[in-house]
Amino acid sequence: MDLITVRELYKHPEEHLGKEINVGGWVRSLRDSKAFGFIVVSDGSFFETLQIVYHDTLPNFAEVSKLSVGTAILVRGTLVSTPQAKQPFEIQAAEVTVEGTSSPDYPLQKKRHSLEFLRTISHLRPRTNTFQAVFRVRSLIAYAIHQYFQERDFVYVHTPLITGSDCEGAGEMFQVTTMDLNNIPKTEDGRADFSQDFFGKATNLTVSGQLNAETYAMAFRNVYTFGPTFRAENSNTTRHAAEFWMIEPEMAFADLDDNMCLAEGMLKYIIRFVLEHAPEEMNFFNQFVDKGLLDRLHNVLNSEFGRITYTEAVKILEEHNDEFDYKVSWGCDLQTEHERYLTEQVFKKPVFVTDYPKEIKAFYMKMNPDNKTVAAVDCLVPGIGEIIGGSQREDDYGRLTSRMDELGLKKEDYDFYLDLRKYGSTRHAGFGLGFERCVMYLTGMSNIRDVIPFPRTVNNCEL
Amino acid sequence: MDLITVRELYKHPEEHLGKEINVGGWVRSLRDSKAFGFIVVSDGSFFETLQIVYHDTLPNFAEVSKLSVGTAILVRGTLVSTPQAKQPFEIQAAEVTVEGTSSPDYPLQKKRHSLEFLRTISHLRPRTNTFQAVFRVRSLIAYAIHQYFQERDFVYVHTPLITGSDCEGAGEMFQVTTMDLNNIPKTEDGRADFSQDFFGKATNLTVSGQLNAETYAMAFRNVYTFGPTFRAENSNTTRHAAEFWMIEPEMAFADLDDNMCLAEGMLKYIIRFVLEHAPEEMNFFNQFVDKGLLDRLHNVLNSEFGRITYTEAVKILEEHNDEFDYKVSWGCDLQTEHERYLTEQVFKKPVFVTDYPKEIKAFYMKMNPDNKTVAAVDCLVPGIGEIIGGSQREDDYGRLTSRMDELGLKKEDYDFYLDLRKYGSTRHAGFGLGFERCVMYLTGMSNIRDVIPFPRTVNNCEL
Repeated sequence: MDLITVRELYKHPEEHLGKEINVGGWVRSLRDSKAFGFIVVSDGSFFETLQIVYHDTLPNFAEVSKLSVGTAILVRGTLVSTPQAKQPFEIQAAEVTVEGTSSPDYPLQKKRHSLEFLRTISHLRPRTNTFQAVFRVRSLIAYAIHQYFQERDFVYVHTPLITGSDCEGAGEMFQVTTMDLNNIPKTEDGRADFSQDFFGKATNLTVSGQLNAETYAMAFRNVYTFGPTFRAENSNTTRHAAEFWMIEPEMAFADLDDNMCLAEGMLKYIIRFVLEHAPEEMNFFNQFVDKGLLDRLHNVLNSEFGRITYTEAVKILEEHNDEFDYKVSWGCDLQTEHERYLTEQVFKKPVFVTDYPKEIKAFYMKMNPDNKTVAAVDCLVPGIGEIIGGSQREDDYGRLTSRMDELGLKKEDYDFYLDLRKYGSTRHAGFGLGFERCVMYLTGMSNIRDVIPFPRTVNNCEL
Repeated sequence: MDLITVRELYKHPEEHLGKEINVGGWVRSLRDSKAFGFIVVSDGSFFETLQIVYHDTLPNFAEVSKLSVGTAILVRGTLVSTPQAKQPFEIQAAEVTVEGTSSPDYPLQKKRHSLEFLRTISHLRPRTNTFQAVFRVRSLIAYAIHQYFQERDFVYVHTPLITGSDCEGAGEMFQVTTMDLNNIPKTEDGRADFSQDFFGKATNLTVSGQLNAETYAMAFRNVYTFGPTFRAENSNTTRHAAEFWMIEPEMAFADLDDNMCLAEGMLKYIIRFVLEHAPEEMNFFNQFVDKGLLDRLHNVLNSEFGRITYTEAVKILEEHNDEFDYKVSWGCDLQTEHERYLTEQVFKKPVFVTDYPKEIKAFYMKMNPDNKTVAAVDCLVPGIGEIIGGSQREDDYGRLTSRMDELGLKKEDYDFYLDLRKYGSTRHAGFGLGFERCVMYLTGMSNIRDVIPFPRTVNNCEL
């Protein structure tokens, strides 16, 4: 259909002013009087709406005056500039055709709806201002991430979702099976007989693509993943979902410093991209969702991220233990309250915390010469806390296997991973960015359910 | 680490010629003689390799001369042009440092390996020429797809992977559960008690994001998905995997013609992008994998895709029934042999086949005025057959529900989908592109296991 989008009108109005054009969209509101009326239309292509003016010269004037909110219409008319009005232009309609009516029980009548209510209609909420903004920005962030890595010649790797292994021993995983759950085939000793399952063994949904990504970094040097990840954690918080997307870059011939440079560059790139490509949406968030948002993002753009070791950070935090619910001491994992204190109060900008105690980090992280800490790094940002976690990887076969022994990990489960340390091992490093956390950070939205189109959480798998 | 990539050297040699630089990479081969030697190195950033020349002036000359294939090394040296040689330049080494040795049992010694063998070492195969080419091109195709849609302001939607519904009634789905498979909780009547499962109900892995994508098209007008999809089909073919990626654009205010234009534009865009960004890889495929590849792709770029209705196509095919294993008659589904005949023999270029009998297509496709066919479209390409399947969607509430009744589909399972036809329904259309099939088409690779980093098929879920 030969329709001009509202985005196109806003981007290049001069090309259309004074001309007859066709547009299509959904009625957001309508004001009618005896001889004329105004229809505000959204066509989903742009955050701003388009005003249509119609007169009683229309043959279907009466019908148009009764259009209900949500109706899809086609409009033929002339674009005219409206220098006196708050919108830059409007369409003077020569023809208004109903494409699809909207039933009077349409839940999105023109009034403010709570986010809680809108979660119950996840198929309709993208039609509201807030979710138009959230999900367009989500799309742009995803694209910015691809662009950032592709411009730097990183190879995008689709690591598998269904997996026979458990990357970090992360416990709570979803099982995947084709066996009849009403009648599971059993072995002689009465246990589930996975040899009869689709893959001939027990399989799960992945919790991280990192180990697979490392194998590709050892071939392509710089790679990244961007795909769904799953956690069957039985926690009902505003920050956890059972299904979410992760970005995991991995670089060969790279150390922890390279890792931090890549992460800082990425976050700044994404922020710049979104400010440039979605200024209307970002202003909306700043005005209606999170007042300090734009200041905070500009502050990130203009600052060099801080760097501090875990040991130094703990010293600072211990001096403020009276302000924390959980008291800090060397060896403990940092809680969100500590992370936020560091980035918001101490540094007042994003900060990398490095060199954590080995006991609180994963087996594959590179041991530091002190033999107590590993070359891990978390990036903490104001308003959120940890947004990125990464490390330089242990590239020495002997040190890696002895760490695995200490932790009771079976080497035969990691043959492929150990091969990387046998055949041309190199320094390498990478990190993980939780995509939804990144979207929350850039939009100011505070519940993860509001940045995922169809969120999956405990007892919730609708649509 | 401050290393120059091989890609950078090939792209901007003039900036580095005559200068001392540092590179890192893996030894592909080594030839040594008494006083000097040559090392061919790949650093994964570029399809071509880099030659290092070293002399007995190196303090570790003896060690270097014995480097085994697969060893990771760092080289400091001067880039010099080699107009007489087949490679444009080489590095005269001042220093060669071993970053990581390679055990003598390294499986990728310098000789040709079969694709079957390489499938057994999926963590190492990306280090070979063939898979360097395949997986870099796979990454570029993915990026081209994002670029195509984002340049056209399509919104990227992450539709859910875990789902409580079965889009097309497609049968063979993977179940997702956190219940103990050795001891499934049961209801009083002895069946699995899904109320005790993570989501409080039975859930599966998605077979298509289309229905969800439609809800977003009705808000954003133009959207696309690009994510993993699953089929638990017990078929062991060269074209089917249990886990694969799909692209599903969906457009509001669009009909079947818009759909075909979008699909044709997309395929041409991808081909152009890959030819431009991976000429070395594409030449390799053309020379060693599929001799006619480049001719075929250029032919696609230069032709306007054919268009024919199913009814017309069947008439043509019936005249050649003696050449087919499955005989064609009106009403039957087209097999790959028929599809390939149409595109390879009849049209000699890609062709859109439209307006299929409703009986062989999904319930949501728009009924044509003849009441026998639906506004479906398949795109057939030489060498493959169907690569894209799509349709205009039934946007009329009454016709959609009566079709669902005919097929025995429960309306309550599709409330959200029917809402789209109650609240501002519009003409809309979309299609699905199987990503792996697209990669096979552009690389000439003939087994889907060779275009997925870690393929999942019946009884195969390694790494």
